[in-house]
Amino acid sequence: MPRSLVLERKGQLSLREIALDQPMGPGDVRIAVHTVGICGSDVHYYTHGRIGPFVVEAPMILGHEASGTVTEVGAEVTHLKPGDRVCMEPGIPDPSSRASKMGIYNVDPAVRFWATPPVHGCLTSHVVHPAAFTYRLPDAVSFAEGAMVEPFAIGMQAALRARIQPGDIAMVLGAGPIGMMTALAALAGGCAKVLVADLAQPKLDIIGAYPGIETVNIRDMPAGRAIAQATDGWGADVVFECSGAAPAVLGLPALARPGGAVVLVGMPVDPVPMDIVGLQARELRVETVFRYANVYDRAIALIAAGRIDLKPLISDTVDFEDAVAAFDRAAEGRETDVKLQIRMPGA
Amino acid sequence: MPRSLVLERKGQLSLREIALDQPMGPGDVRIAVHTVGICGSDVHYYTHGRIGPFVVEAPMILGHEASGTVTEVGAEVTHLKPGDRVCMEPGIPDPSSRASKMGIYNVDPAVRFWATPPVHGCLTSHVVHPAAFTYRLPDAVSFAEGAMVEPFAIGMQAALRARIQPGDIAMVLGAGPIGMMTALAALAGGCAKVLVADLAQPKLDIIGAYPGIETVNIRDMPAGRAIAQATDGWGADVVFECSGAAPAVLGLPALARPGGAVVLVGMPVDPVPMDIVGLQARELRVETVFRYANVYDRAIALIAAGRIDLKPLISDTVDFEDAVAAFDRAAEGRETDVKLQIRMPGA
Amino acid sequence: MPRSLVLERKGQLSLREIALDQPMGPGDVRIAVHTVGICGSDVHYYTHGRIGPFVVEAPMILGHEASGTVTEVGAEVTHLKPGDRVCMEPGIPDPSSRASKMGIYNVDPAVRFWATPPVHGCLTSHVVHPAAFTYRLPDAVSFAEGAMVEPFAIGMQAALRARIQPGDIAMVLGAGPIGMMTALAALAGGCAKVLVADLAQPKLDIIGAYPGIETVNIRDMPAGRAIAQATDGWGADVVFECSGAAPAVLGLPALARPGGAVVLVGMPVDPVPMDIVGLQARELRVETVFRYANVYDRAIALIAAGRIDLKPLISDTVDFEDAVAAFDRAAEGRETDVKLQIRMPGA
Amino acid sequence: MPRSLVLERKGQLSLREIALDQPMGPGDVRIAVHTVGICGSDVHYYTHGRIGPFVVEAPMILGHEASGTVTEVGAEVTHLKPGDRVCMEPGIPDPSSRASKMGIYNVDPAVRFWATPPVHGCLTSHVVHPAAFTYRLPDAVSFAEGAMVEPFAIGMQAALRARIQPGDIAMVLGAGPIGMMTALAALAGGCAKVLVADLAQPKLDIIGAYPGIETVNIRDMPAGRAIAQATDGWGADVVFECSGAAPAVLGLPALARPGGAVVLVGMPVDPVPMDIVGLQARELRVETVFRYANVYDRAIALIAAGRIDLKPLISDTVDFEDAVAAFDRAAEGRETDVKLQIRMPGA
Repeated sequence: MPRSLVLERKGQLSLREIALDQPMGPGDVRIAVHTVGICGSDVHYYTHGRIGPFVVEAPMILGHEASGTVTEVGAEVTHLKPGDRVCMEPGIPDPSSRASKMGIYNVDPAVRFWATPPVHGCLTSHVVHPAAFTYRLPDAVSFAEGAMVEPFAIGMQAALRARIQPGDIAMVLGAGPIGMMTALAALAGGCAKVLVADLAQPKLDIIGAYPGIETVNIRDMPAGRAIAQATDGWGADVVFECSGAAPAVLGLPALARPGGAVVLVGMPVDPVPMDIVGLQARELRVETVFRYANVYDRAIALIAAGRIDLKPLISDTVDFEDAVAAFDRAAEGRETDVKLQIRMPGA
Repeated sequence: MPRSLVLERKGQLSLREIALDQPMGPGDVRIAVHTVGICGSDVHYYTHGRIGPFVVEAPMILGHEASGTVTEVGAEVTHLKPGDRVCMEPGIPDPSSRASKMGIYNVDPAVRFWATPPVHGCLTSHVVHPAAFTYRLPDAVSFAEGAMVEPFAIGMQAALRARIQPGDIAMVLGAGPIGMMTALAALAGGCAKVLVADLAQPKLDIIGAYPGIETVNIRDMPAGRAIAQATDGWGADVVFECSGAAPAVLGLPALARPGGAVVLVGMPVDPVPMDIVGLQARELRVETVFRYANVYDRAIALIAAGRIDLKPLISDTVDFEDAVAAFDRAAEGRETDVKLQIRMPGA
Repeated sequence: MPRSLVLERKGQLSLREIALDQPMGPGDVRIAVHTVGICGSDVHYYTHGRIGPFVVEAPMILGHEASGTVTEVGAEVTHLKPGDRVCMEPGIPDPSSRASKMGIYNVDPAVRFWATPPVHGCLTSHVVHPAAFTYRLPDAVSFAEGAMVEPFAIGMQAALRARIQPGDIAMVLGAGPIGMMTALAALAGGCAKVLVADLAQPKLDIIGAYPGIETVNIRDMPAGRAIAQATDGWGADVVFECSGAAPAVLGLPALARPGGAVVLVGMPVDPVPMDIVGLQARELRVETVFRYANVYDRAIALIAAGRIDLKPLISDTVDFEDAVAAFDRAAEGRETDVKLQIRMPGA
Repeated sequence: MPRSLVLERKGQLSLREIALDQPMGPGDVRIAVHTVGICGSDVHYYTHGRIGPFVVEAPMILGHEASGTVTEVGAEVTHLKPGDRVCMEPGIPDPSSRASKMGIYNVDPAVRFWATPPVHGCLTSHVVHPAAFTYRLPDAVSFAEGAMVEPFAIGMQAALRARIQPGDIAMVLGAGPIGMMTALAALAGGCAKVLVADLAQPKLDIIGAYPGIETVNIRDMPAGRAIAQATDGWGADVVFECSGAAPAVLGLPALARPGGAVVLVGMPVDPVPMDIVGLQARELRVETVFRYANVYDRAIALIAAGRIDLKPLISDTVDFEDAVAAFDRAAEGRETDVKLQIRMPGA
């Protein structure tokens, strides 16, 4: 029995054998996992043992950002075959639910999502997954990039919900991994320019290296002044709130142009004050984001076509044997780390 | 010189002559005012002397919900002629502004709006107004109904921003005049059913008399339970927040279905806490409303076709001579009063 | 073995026993069929033996507009139970297909649709159907109305694709059953007024009896003149083409307002000329309709709430024993017949 | 009096003095014209004397793709000053028209458009123009690029109407100047990849030099096969018809994915057959394009940010003295010429 990265309980990780019940249906594929990225939510389960109502009450395999190679396909699978390099969408909805029928399967209450208690994640040697949520990687997309599709998908969902129009000018508040992904998705999605605001200069340096991205260190200049300068006082067409910080949320109305949009990506733990009259005075539209639906294909297409390059955001790659150390490093929250990836044995 | 209803200063109204500078341009019309409704904002200037940044610093004519008869047209006016019965959109934007060019003239920062300091309102005998913002009333629409178009337009804007789909089920929080207008606009706009929630039973009785409207007295049943019962637990397609009350705003996520919409119509004076993670969990879209744009035509069409009947919401009509008393009555905020109207001399 | 209405071959119908293979899965329900409407496509298979690429090559049960009573539910079915009165969506997609994941399961190439060769229809005593495509009828909705949901759903889809805004003025070309359904859906969906144009006065009389519908006999007045009169020369916000007639299609641009929409519902057998430059000059949006997706719930909600009354469109109801005669009558195409329904034995 | 490029009548151009009546209003600016591109419509008036209902009946200055320098501003102009480098939107609507109020001023029937009879164009030394339709060029945008904004705006309008979603795959039929502009706008607007199909290899070579654009010579491979290969048989998310050719229009349904969009940009002179049932079978949305509205800002932003480079499409630039020869060359329709520009005297 191969080993997995198991969160035994809050604060304790181990690499060990763990029995998995993975029956394979006619629409499923079996995949040898190759690369898995470490996400902030994985780290949060490690350090806090819970996220909101989801509590770790039994040993759980972590990981949900994965790529791999198909080793077996179910009888009804037609678009994949053994040997295909793939990445996997980690949330599996009930395909006959009301939300799924409407195409918004991400908000199906029945979704089972990797590494969300009590569902095991993918930091293990093989997983069985529905073919419908398994995507072939073109030759131009590496396993490492394939494992970046999941976090990038959140940025894509934000860009989709924003309904970007070609030539929009956007502002992103917060230069964490999701803020970076959102900025890149907004740029790939048609923005002329994206301003990214944060306090941490090392993060701004990383994302600011992309052409089309401008950075604002809000220690030096308020976000409002920066967007006013960039737009002759008109405001951003779209503001992406990716910090989850209360002052950022409160100040949103001043950043957007009349009739513009605000996309709430960051997740403040508690309710935070919003300036409703301020939002109304510019008649802003506020969109929210929950994971993603129907974006993997388009994310992969952008990467494969070279429209977007996620490789600079992979800060380091470690072997599975060093996975616990990688989690500890991720838990440090170094400002120069965006994404750490784990390469599985044999990959 | 005819008399006007003048707010001399906070708390003091008079019917008196006041000199007006009303030059008439080639695109303007002159209108003999017939009927003017009293709006909560008129009353608020009377009782408080200000609304947010707009402060009454000089005597100002009140009133912005008006109908009347065209008496003179400018040289370039083609769609109106003297004798036409009309109603008037009270906000006049700069037609060459960036917002106006985009069709969202309501959020043009340059808008001049009747009875918003320092701009005079229409509780006077004649007004000069751009023909482009003056709308002919079909024979089937009375002057009284014509003066209801303005408040109804806010409900229409809310319904438009909601992007109602035929057969939606909506919930309206707050049964004040704007909540009622919104409920009727949502129903006329394609909802199968609209639930209106409030504490005040007299208000609920008035709006509940319309077929298609169901009422919820939240003293008896929480809004969340009511919408769950009406939708088999799925939630409202659209929730219109018309109360401006902080607890209502905080509780919004639980009322809407996955992928649904929330429209913020009510205007809380100060920032209020919002449950962002709750909004995200259902990936709700939040729309805001600021006055209206491009809705007068469609509002009049619905009234003229008999699709909507606003007459039951006209609680009383008084002569201009009794206008001050009518304002005092409006300031009482009787739960059985929805809209009070003033009929101008000679009308 | 109960009897079914079987199309043996082009032109030959019989009521006879026919063996059906209806395995029941965990997500399925078994339904005793109560009422089935006769659709133009059923009649077309009867009289022509084919529709486009779909050719009747073996005996096939007809019928796809049905209501009934649940008699058995699969192990995973939660929202239905035996005894529930229901109606059924006749097209069953592959829930894991790319189109289904996007919420547009109607255009999933894998859809299996009742009474479309080689798939049997529902003019039989019992059917097995996915619970996800079976909808409970509220008490206020009769079996007869339940069997009207299917044709009405096409009108609903047209109204949805049109993106009607409250107070729109629409024009419907063609007063066949689908034109009527579309007109009613457009009205229920927020139009202030719907003009229906046709040559057949009996049809116009039927649909014109609904408040909010105006009729235009194009023998007396061209459609373009009628809509110009109704809109002061501006044009319809939405034009629904339900005739499938080439001259109607060619003349579409003149009927719509600048920036308006055209919805192509009628299905001309062969390509027909369109005035592309005319469409461009008003920058019209042209939507097309293929069956429906995600509209049954909302259609039922509108009927249950009394927002729409389809009963006047049920021209006659016959017993199953007389089903062949009913098909012959439907094939006559009487102008006073809108919908004929068949009541199953025991219903 | 300076000289202008005057179309005396069909087939006869001259550089000569011509009196212009250019009163300047408070919202206008006067501009010294610097660079003017030659458009196919200019050439068509030269060679045919008319376009549809617009007939050259008196000498008319040609040209509508222009950049220049502000020399004087009206009293109410605030966002421009003398010395500003600008480009100009050549269509001037009635700002108080119904269409303008809705933000779709391009379809205002009252639009006056440069070089559309009887309105003079801009191939003259100075023009007076509304400041609201005059756009400042950032330092990074040259006069030559400024004069490219107008043709690019048509591509932008097509991209906007398409409602591109990030990662879409698009196909453009026709590699004329507008097809190229559309392809580049679609790419800048978020497409992962754009396939451009044409018969003329020299044109394909020009546009195919852009990263992200793939070309299909339909002599070698049908467009349908090419898009099927690029999308695993799924079809294009958006198909832009820029050829105006009847066979291309007829074949549109086969190119788009289920639920995709077709944008009609090319203008076939006469009605052409469309396969309505084919469009319906995939429930395609068909958008049309008429010039542009509210796109200049965003086009300039994309160019200034380096997201798009139009310079390779400027095939040659000639002095005003050689303008007639340039028109003759343009009339030849060389496959290696995309855009010819004329530099005005003193520029």
